Amino acid sequence: MSILKSFIEVSEDSHFPIQNLPYGVFKPTLNDQARIGVAIGDFVCDLSVLADLKLFDGKLKDTKVFHQENLNSFMSLGKELWSEARKTIQNLLSSETSTIRDNKEYREKIFHSISSVTMLLPARIGDYTDFYASKEHATNVGIMFRGKENALMPNWVHLPVGYHGRSSSIVVSGTPLKRPWGQTKSDEPDSLPTFNPCRLLDFELEMGALIGGESTKLGEPISIESAKDHIFGLVLLNDWSARDIQKWEYVPLGPFLAKNFGSTISPWVVTMEALQPFATKPPTQDPQPMKYLQEQGNTTFDIELSVSIKSPKMSKPHKVSTSNLKYMYWTLTQQLAHHTVNGCNMNAGDLLGTGTISGPTEDSYGSMLELSWKGSKVVSLGTETNEERKFIQDGDSVILSGLCKGNGYQIGFGNCEGTILPADKRQ
Amino acid sequence: MSILKSFIEVSEDSHFPIQNLPYGVFKPTLNDQARIGVAIGDFVCDLSVLADLKLFDGKLKDTKVFHQENLNSFMSLGKELWSEARKTIQNLLSSETSTIRDNKEYREKIFHSISSVTMLLPARIGDYTDFYASKEHATNVGIMFRGKENALMPNWVHLPVGYHGRSSSIVVSGTPLKRPWGQTKSDEPDSLPTFNPCRLLDFELEMGALIGGESTKLGEPISIESAKDHIFGLVLLNDWSARDIQKWEYVPLGPFLAKNFGSTISPWVVTMEALQPFATKPPTQDPQPMKYLQEQGNTTFDIELSVSIKSPKMSKPHKVSTSNLKYMYWTLTQQLAHHTVNGCNMNAGDLLGTGTISGPTEDSYGSMLELSWKGSKVVSLGTETNEERKFIQDGDSVILSGLCKGNGYQIGFGNCEGTILPADKRQ
Repeated sequence: MSILKSFIEVSEDSHFPIQNLPYGVFKPTLNDQARIGVAIGDFVCDLSVLADLKLFDGKLKDTKVFHQENLNSFMSLGKELWSEARKTIQNLLSSETSTIRDNKEYREKIFHSISSVTMLLPARIGDYTDFYASKEHATNVGIMFRGKENALMPNWVHLPVGYHGRSSSIVVSGTPLKRPWGQTKSDEPDSLPTFNPCRLLDFELEMGALIGGESTKLGEPISIESAKDHIFGLVLLNDWSARDIQKWEYVPLGPFLAKNFGSTISPWVVTMEALQPFATKPPTQDPQPMKYLQEQGNTTFDIELSVSIKSPKMSKPHKVSTSNLKYMYWTLTQQLAHHTVNGCNMNAGDLLGTGTISGPTEDSYGSMLELSWKGSKVVSLGTETNEERKFIQDGDSVILSGLCKGNGYQIGFGNCEGTILPADKRQ
Repeated sequence: MSILKSFIEVSEDSHFPIQNLPYGVFKPTLNDQARIGVAIGDFVCDLSVLADLKLFDGKLKDTKVFHQENLNSFMSLGKELWSEARKTIQNLLSSETSTIRDNKEYREKIFHSISSVTMLLPARIGDYTDFYASKEHATNVGIMFRGKENALMPNWVHLPVGYHGRSSSIVVSGTPLKRPWGQTKSDEPDSLPTFNPCRLLDFELEMGALIGGESTKLGEPISIESAKDHIFGLVLLNDWSARDIQKWEYVPLGPFLAKNFGSTISPWVVTMEALQPFATKPPTQDPQPMKYLQEQGNTTFDIELSVSIKSPKMSKPHKVSTSNLKYMYWTLTQQLAHHTVNGCNMNAGDLLGTGTISGPTEDSYGSMLELSWKGSKVVSLGTETNEERKFIQDGDSVILSGLCKGNGYQIGFGNCEGTILPADKRQ
């Protein structure tokens, strides 16, 4: 079987072949209105122009959803129309279809160089929830803070532990973040807390699921069977963490200021439909979860993930971790079924973070806390500058990347990048 | 000095004299567009009509903020315009002003009987944060779960402990909520968790502060000095809690499904300007808080709060708790300054809950958990039916109320009411 190709040239190492078609929100120039596009090779295909040119049909014929400044309206349409839109776009971009291919005027209106546009946050995120779904991560953190015997809390294997995060401070890849100030306290028994810039700044390698479909009603759970129909697509998510602030503040109600100074997501939302060829079995769950969390088959995804760091002295990033979504113990669908089992309602644009995705080996840990084992050892930034890190320093950029390797093609998430600026000067 | 009066008759026990003028969102009939009004006596004054009649002046002359389906646009205007709007409305409703008083046509357009309108959620709440700011409540809960010696965590006296809540499930007073299902686990050492409807359903007596003014930028804290300018007004807040679900799930990342099945707020937002006459000194803080949390003067408010329960058998609610906002250790302004000290950004419509407001005496506790001391004793629902409760039962309504007693007048928050429906039938 020959592989579907676009008339747009797509290099072999591109994240964005015609099999991907991730959605994003962009401005062609800063003065333009934001609108929705898909990435194809080194280009953005402007879907608002496709709509204006009446190239969508059926229920999407006169749609305005691609003229919006976020994906919420499109995501709320539900999976049938997501599928229809994808089919139309894929057909229009195919090397076999002449409509755009052979129309220079159309092509000039429709395509923008991906390097020239400004990407915006893809969704208006109503509620952001973060899970803690990697057994390796939860175990590592548990060992560091409570010792090997009590590493996993008793509830951990029975339910996907999660907590609410802050929506307002979620930013799109490329947005720099200032090192936060906050209260911290040393381990000395009689020491008093101090107020200072965070000293133990960390990243967390996560993925985020964007909820789509009609809003659910308060009091009506989403069953494990239907959970997948409520997930529109995935992004990369860096859940920046101030470990010293976290340690002092988090008892008994959980992390707060240690997390809400900023969380970075990738601009391109890869749809569940594009990810379907990479569906795979999740790890065996023991004990068997309760009935409302039971599912069969290929319920997770084989997505290779990596974290790279680039210090101001380095000319290119150095990879410090390689992980995979499939290592996660609790799947995205289990997370969503659990989240709503009490009747909690979901809206299109809600974001569910997976929690740090750590793998079984030391080079697959998804945070500096684990890679440097609580700062007890150094992480090399490679031979270019021979720099080392225990945590993130001012000027460092952290780049998450995600890639699925298919048969003759690969689909990727692009980059999720953020740079840490020095803390404000304060009294 | 004679007291300002309205030409609208306001009974002495009304919560809504001309000194109050709380804002709310309402529909005159279910088919009407939502719009904004203020409560005055037994009436709602329709501000969209005042605007259409060109009764606002200056910067509010052609305003459309009162035609919106939430207060966000108005709240984002900032305190100068809040003050100007209040002055205009107060003047128009004064017994001394003939504009509306003597114009029958105007009066018919402007006023609706408060009992005939449908009240909606007053704001589109972007992010909801809940604090834990009552020392009495934190101590009571601490004693119950960790014993007297370790009741307060060491961080508690140094910072206002808070955590993120769920926005989507915040509902307006009058919305019934189903008893949630969830995982719980008995105290038996080797027992397994079970899946069942919550057995220990509780209320929490709280107040919520609605943020106003321009959005702050990520990375820019709100100082303790300017914090009060970013708070538009207060509502009553019942942070419903499933205690048995909470106990099993909350370690180590905090409460999640135990809280996000529903939180109820009152429809009328009482402005900080209306509350100013009731400003009072907060409790002495020892140790002295860090500089970014230090403030002087009357930084809290004397607001009498109460909780009543009405079982299906009762003809009227019975009061089970009497508390006061002024008992709170950490003030609203300290909460906001702390929340943003790391640069977390705020938007108009964000909601900051105080956490349960318990007072020093047993009859001032703000939850059934405390009133029944973890179910070790019963709470009487009065002599009408001689019913007793340890926690909330199906069909019970919980009513929060708030009132400030002024010199010759009182201003109130109306009611914040919710009824618990039986859990869904499930396998």
